[in-house]
Amino acid sequence: MELQLALDLVNIPEAKKLVKEVEDYIDIVEIGTPVVINEGLKAVKEIKQEFPSLKVLADLKIMDAAGYEVMKASEAGADIITILGAAEDMSIKGAVDEAKKQGKKILVDMIGIKDIEGRAKELDAMGVDYICVHTGYDLQAVGQNSFEDLKKIKSVVKNAKTAVAGGIKLETLPEVVKAKPDLVIVGGGITGKEDKQATAAQMQKMIRQG
Amino acid sequence: MELQLALDLVNIPEAKKLVKEVEDYIDIVEIGTPVVINEGLKAVKEIKQEFPSLKVLADLKIMDAAGYEVMKASEAGADIITILGAAEDMSIKGAVDEAKKQGKKILVDMIGIKDIEGRAKELDAMGVDYICVHTGYDLQAVGQNSFEDLKKIKSVVKNAKTAVAGGIKLETLPEVVKAKPDLVIVGGGITGKEDKQATAAQMQKMIRQG
Repeated sequence: MELQLALDLVNIPEAKKLVKEVEDYIDIVEIGTPVVINEGLKAVKEIKQEFPSLKVLADLKIMDAAGYEVMKASEAGADIITILGAAEDMSIKGAVDEAKKQGKKILVDMIGIKDIEGRAKELDAMGVDYICVHTGYDLQAVGQNSFEDLKKIKSVVKNAKTAVAGGIKLETLPEVVKAKPDLVIVGGGITGKEDKQATAAQMQKMIRQG
Repeated sequence: MELQLALDLVNIPEAKKLVKEVEDYIDIVEIGTPVVINEGLKAVKEIKQEFPSLKVLADLKIMDAAGYEVMKASEAGADIITILGAAEDMSIKGAVDEAKKQGKKILVDMIGIKDIEGRAKELDAMGVDYICVHTGYDLQAVGQNSFEDLKKIKSVVKNAKTAVAGGIKLETLPEVVKAKPDLVIVGGGITGKEDKQATAAQMQKMIRQG
């Protein structure tokens, strides 16, 4: 089980400062969609250059022109690139093919998908690397979470790794760990804490024991 | 009926050069998703500053954190911001609310939506400004287009304006114009031509007569 730090509401200098604090306790840094939109792929490039030993995920939430976007993110130094589960199968396949060519991984974000199990099966068959259940900001605001969805995809996915994202905190982490995802993605649960390092360290410990 | 130029595979200087050539013949400049990913919202800001009389559309294809993204794009100078039809209703409503606050417009991109008519009805009721049928690059590559989908949404949408995008060329424009969308979006059909200005001029003429 790996730990990913999601950076969403920061600029590049703030991102660097945050990662420095917790780099010993995380496996992957996510350059979140808002950071990509605000700053472009430069954000991915600068973080990868400064932290070459960490994997970097570029949260592009690709919906179209998938091969091209995966190529650009790979050039910028991303190790993992995200595409939406809602994208057309042609786009999913284009992303997977290009990622293989580049030696990169594809994570599918299931945000907005109604038939989680059915779509997860299809995505698994298309050879994606990770399938991630994700309660976005706009639904977290009305109290939803992804723990039930995680169990659903765990029951149908055979080859892909599973991931979970959306509002995970130290207090809710034990429930998440119990469902045994391969990747746990935490944003505000670390970045919103006074002592980010201690929080990340404690999360890492729980994840490695889980 | 308005004409929008979509810029997808250019950097900022190339975008400026292209817009200069055709600015007299278009109503809206689209900063396409690939440009936003590569360059960030700076691309929106620079084009709006250089061409203040044109409307600028920021093709963010929002899927989450909709209010925040609409705010950031508005700050950068966008007049119209895109959200995916596949986004949760909470996100659509968040985008519409923030756009109203900022005096901006929301265009919903229907890419990847299976039940075009049903979703268009729902989106129309949520108060979005434009509903856009869109055959993305990855499906254009296998010969699909959006003309039939345009007829479908025209038959159900009562308040929103309708738009069509994806592979429209001078040769296919008459068919599009006949279906009477409010907005026609053209990318490679202009940017891929030797004489971009003459092509845009001819398209504008056909659109104004249509």
